[in-house]
Parts: sequence; C-alpha cells; structure tokens
Amino acid sequence: MSSIFTKIINGEIPSYKVAENDEFYAFLDINPNAKGHTLVVPKKEVNKLFDLEEDAYNSLMSYSRKIAIALEEAVPCKRIGMAVIGLEVPHVHVHLIPLQEMEDIQFNKKVKLEPQEFIKIAKAISNNL
Amino acid sequence: MSSIFTKIINGEIPSYKVAENDEFYAFLDINPNAKGHTLVVPKKEVNKLFDLEEDAYNSLMSYSRKIAIALEEAVPCKRIGMAVIGLEVPHVHVHLIPLQEMEDIQFNKKVKLEPQEFIKIAKAISNNL
Repeated sequence: MSSIFTKIINGEIPSYKVAENDEFYAFLDINPNAKGHTLVVPKKEVNKLFDLEEDAYNSLMSYSRKIAIALEEAVPCKRIGMAVIGLEVPHVHVHLIPLQEMEDIQFNKKVKLEPQEFIKIAKAISNNL
Repeated sequence: MSSIFTKIINGEIPSYKVAENDEFYAFLDINPNAKGHTLVVPKKEVNKLFDLEEDAYNSLMSYSRKIAIALEEAVPCKRIGMAVIGLEVPHVHVHLIPLQEMEDIQFNKKVKLEPQEFIKIAKAISNNL
C-alpha cells in the first residue's frame, strides 16, 4: 500500500505544496509544530533515510537546503531546525521547522492554522525559491 | 571565545572520539538521549547549519551519513534519527541518535553511561568506518 506521502505526491490527498522537481516534493505539514513547518519527501518511497543510495541521499539534503533557505526568508524565526525521524510514517521525510525555542522541534506542541494561512505561507516560501 | 565544540576539537576538553578528518570531528554526546548518540561537527566554527556554504553543507551531510551507517551497525536500534537544532550551542552540530521510540529524539530523556561504555561504543562505531 502506498504511504500517505505517496498519496500526497500523486494528488490523491491534497497538500499545501511548496515546491517539487523530478525527485522530491516539498509541502507544509498539516499538523505543524510551528508556522512554516515543511516536509521534504523523495518521490521514490524508501523507508529509512540511511537506506537511501548515496546519490539520492545527497540530492535530498541539497534540495532540503534550498527549501530551508527559502523558508527562513519567508517565516521570521531564530533559525531553521532539521529533523529526520520516521518512526511514524515509513517513507523518508525531512522536517524543516522555523524555531523560536527548543519545544518547536520536540513534536509535542502543535499549532493550528487556517487554510488561508497555509496557502499564504506555502506561496511565500515558493516565491523565495 | 571558542565554542565548547571547538575546545573539544582542539583537545582542550576531552571527548569520546568516533572519527575525524580535515573538515569534521565526530564524538559521543556526553549527555546522550540514547546509547550511541553522536555529534558531527565542522571544525570551522559556523553558527547555523543553513549559513554553511553549499559545499561545506553537502560535505557535512555526506560525512554524517557515513557515521550514521557505522553507528547503525554498532548500536541495535529501529533506525538512526538525525537532528540539527543549535539553539543551545552556536556551532553547527548534527545529532545522530539510535532510536527506539520518539522520546529518544525529544531531548528530554537522558541516559547515564559509564566511561567504559562510552569508550566501547566509540570504538565499535569507529571500527565500522
């Protein structure tokens, strides 16, 4: 069965898209830790980050950097935090999170945004790319 | 003033070293979230991950991957989690953490290890490189 991220990439589940290319899809986390919380996902469904082939891993990291720089310009924050965990969805995803405090990257606190806010943030990040 | 990591790299503060090359130094976190928690640090002191030049960033990610694969072989776990936060020490450091559960990467829970255990783990990771 396809992962939830594959369904998002294929458009079966809607998402607030930030960017995509042949290999990767970047979109806003629908249940964000902080405003601007973005996920970068390889289109090829692989479970663990360090199971990616070296080239695919390097490309994912390089693409995530571009998104992070655009995100940092779009959302005021102290810095962009990066985390790859994957215990919940077995499809590699890089979390990019605008940080104000440690709690923003602990996955306990969630913020609630309206659709219009998601759309505005996704567009602001995208415009910086 | 030098960061605590620069002092570790220069040997002014002791560490359980895992590996190093011209650009990077990898060592065990002395206050680990989980057994095997490793930090990978660029020798050049830069504050934020996404302020690194593209080449330096790519090299850091590539080097961290090598360490993570060696770590995964050395310490039984579900997967290796990666996090870059940096709100506490303003010198880029990649956390590589053997995960059993989400709590292992939330930086709340800490584990206590004896010096002999640190030495053994550092050696085990190093031997897989």
